[in-house]
Amino acid sequence: MGVFTKQSEHSVGKLTEGEIIDRFVAALADACPPFPAGPGGDCAIFPAGQERPFRVATIDSVVFGRHFDLACSGEKAGAKLIQRNLSDLAAAGATPGDALLSILMGPDVEAKWLEDFAHGAGRAAARAGLKLVGGDVCRTAPGTFSATLAVQGFAYRVLTRRSAQVGDVLFVTGHLGGSIYGHHLNFQARLAEGEWLCGQGAVTACTDLSDGLGKDLPGLLGPKLDALVDLKKLPISEAATKLARQDGKPALEHALQDGEDYELLFAVRADQADFIEATFAKTFPGTPLTALGTIAKGAGRLCDAADQQPIKAQGFSHFG
Amino acid sequence: MGVFTKQSEHSVGKLTEGEIIDRFVAALADACPPFPAGPGGDCAIFPAGQERPFRVATIDSVVFGRHFDLACSGEKAGAKLIQRNLSDLAAAGATPGDALLSILMGPDVEAKWLEDFAHGAGRAAARAGLKLVGGDVCRTAPGTFSATLAVQGFAYRVLTRRSAQVGDVLFVTGHLGGSIYGHHLNFQARLAEGEWLCGQGAVTACTDLSDGLGKDLPGLLGPKLDALVDLKKLPISEAATKLARQDGKPALEHALQDGEDYELLFAVRADQADFIEATFAKTFPGTPLTALGTIAKGAGRLCDAADQQPIKAQGFSHFG
Repeated sequence: MGVFTKQSEHSVGKLTEGEIIDRFVAALADACPPFPAGPGGDCAIFPAGQERPFRVATIDSVVFGRHFDLACSGEKAGAKLIQRNLSDLAAAGATPGDALLSILMGPDVEAKWLEDFAHGAGRAAARAGLKLVGGDVCRTAPGTFSATLAVQGFAYRVLTRRSAQVGDVLFVTGHLGGSIYGHHLNFQARLAEGEWLCGQGAVTACTDLSDGLGKDLPGLLGPKLDALVDLKKLPISEAATKLARQDGKPALEHALQDGEDYELLFAVRADQADFIEATFAKTFPGTPLTALGTIAKGAGRLCDAADQQPIKAQGFSHFG
Repeated sequence: MGVFTKQSEHSVGKLTEGEIIDRFVAALADACPPFPAGPGGDCAIFPAGQERPFRVATIDSVVFGRHFDLACSGEKAGAKLIQRNLSDLAAAGATPGDALLSILMGPDVEAKWLEDFAHGAGRAAARAGLKLVGGDVCRTAPGTFSATLAVQGFAYRVLTRRSAQVGDVLFVTGHLGGSIYGHHLNFQARLAEGEWLCGQGAVTACTDLSDGLGKDLPGLLGPKLDALVDLKKLPISEAATKLARQDGKPALEHALQDGEDYELLFAVRADQADFIEATFAKTFPGTPLTALGTIAKGAGRLCDAADQQPIKAQGFSHFG
């Protein structure tokens, strides 16, 4: 049972739009509030102004053939859509609020796979407290499936990129590289860690790693800072090492360039770095944390701390 | 010049994701606030709690081959994406707030067409006061293009479907049917009208017509009311009449079944119907308004006022 079916009686093409939506909403279960806060109207409706002082918003998709393949269950694809977006909220240190979902799919999508997708999305959203408040479904060419989620979160303070200072210490959670071996479908966004970091005044900037450290680190730095990274300390994942043995590319390159780590990369004021590192370890004993190096004046580059020369690493490029 | 190009040097496949986003954001122009409220971070950031008491949210897409074709300019496709979503805000009576944009497209999309798309979207958004605060771009199969917009609006009171009462008078703006002749690419969402209707306590329910009166009216009624419609009064568009001459289907059927009218359908308390009709005409002299009939106990059906029998009309069905 996969995303597409050749038995048209099992396909979404046999269902009306209303039937598709009814089944999808039922499968979303607890993640879906009742009308009018949830599906059923022209818009979802909320009381405004009851939230924390900052509201943040982001949008991200999963596309068949790009973010998952024929071997992927509907549950995992649905959960991935939610986690990808939650990872952006985690990077901002925000608490999940509400989300809108758009499905574009061919008439040959298997109705059961779609229901599994909704189950996976609904469970992941409910676990994180994210409410799926509305959506849209539209037909595309046979053999295609994509789902786009727009999410909002709320925060007392918001972590951003480009706000690190010279001298700050850089940290990263988890292990990097080789996500294609399974992590890209089996991760949980670092929401609790992001919210905790957001509460620490010494944390100056944060982002999540979706395109690979080599590409996301310059995004964190902005155009006027460099990162001096101790490459020996880079937390290379087992999957990256395994992949390196297969394709002959150094594991270090996989750790720098592979996308979909969904880990948090953040900067901390130097005088507080030891304190943050120790407190983080106590608060999140299951989450690896590595001090990668420091931030210096520069030009948005990732440099080897040993010789202070830029490292060439591109990360995952969507349109290369 | 169309959406796809065979000259790969003019295609988006030649650009990096960063280049695509930079050009797109530049073309969005005034519709796009600067970082961190706009693009550039993991999330867009706003101060929360300054808004009107209600927040509403909706999501909608334009898909190549479904909502526009090879003959359609980028500007018109981009404007259509915005107007489709604004029409939902208009139905709620909400003022446009902010929006997130997701583009899924093949590598053969023409870079210039995409820029035109951003111009069209940016201009339509800016005119309505809608801020495009973030987005995402992702590669799909050659020959494909879709864009999804998630929007938010704010209101002092929110108009909804399913809140009409027995005896209410039904009104519709504009003319219905035959949208395929051009209206579907050349409409402006009835935002001002929606906001005005929202301010009138006698207006009990409202929706916009995107799938055709035959389908959207039952959505407005809910399961316990019927609409008794005077079919002679139905405001049939010139395009529907023209289309009827071509395909031999009655113009009335086009007015009932064709999608993409993007007009407002609303219910008014009977004792205030004349007052609302007269005041609306003074306030919006350029917007046709028609009293279609009245609301009675029933089962979500569109009935002919003459014989009180249900009219069979399906409207535009996405997955039929």
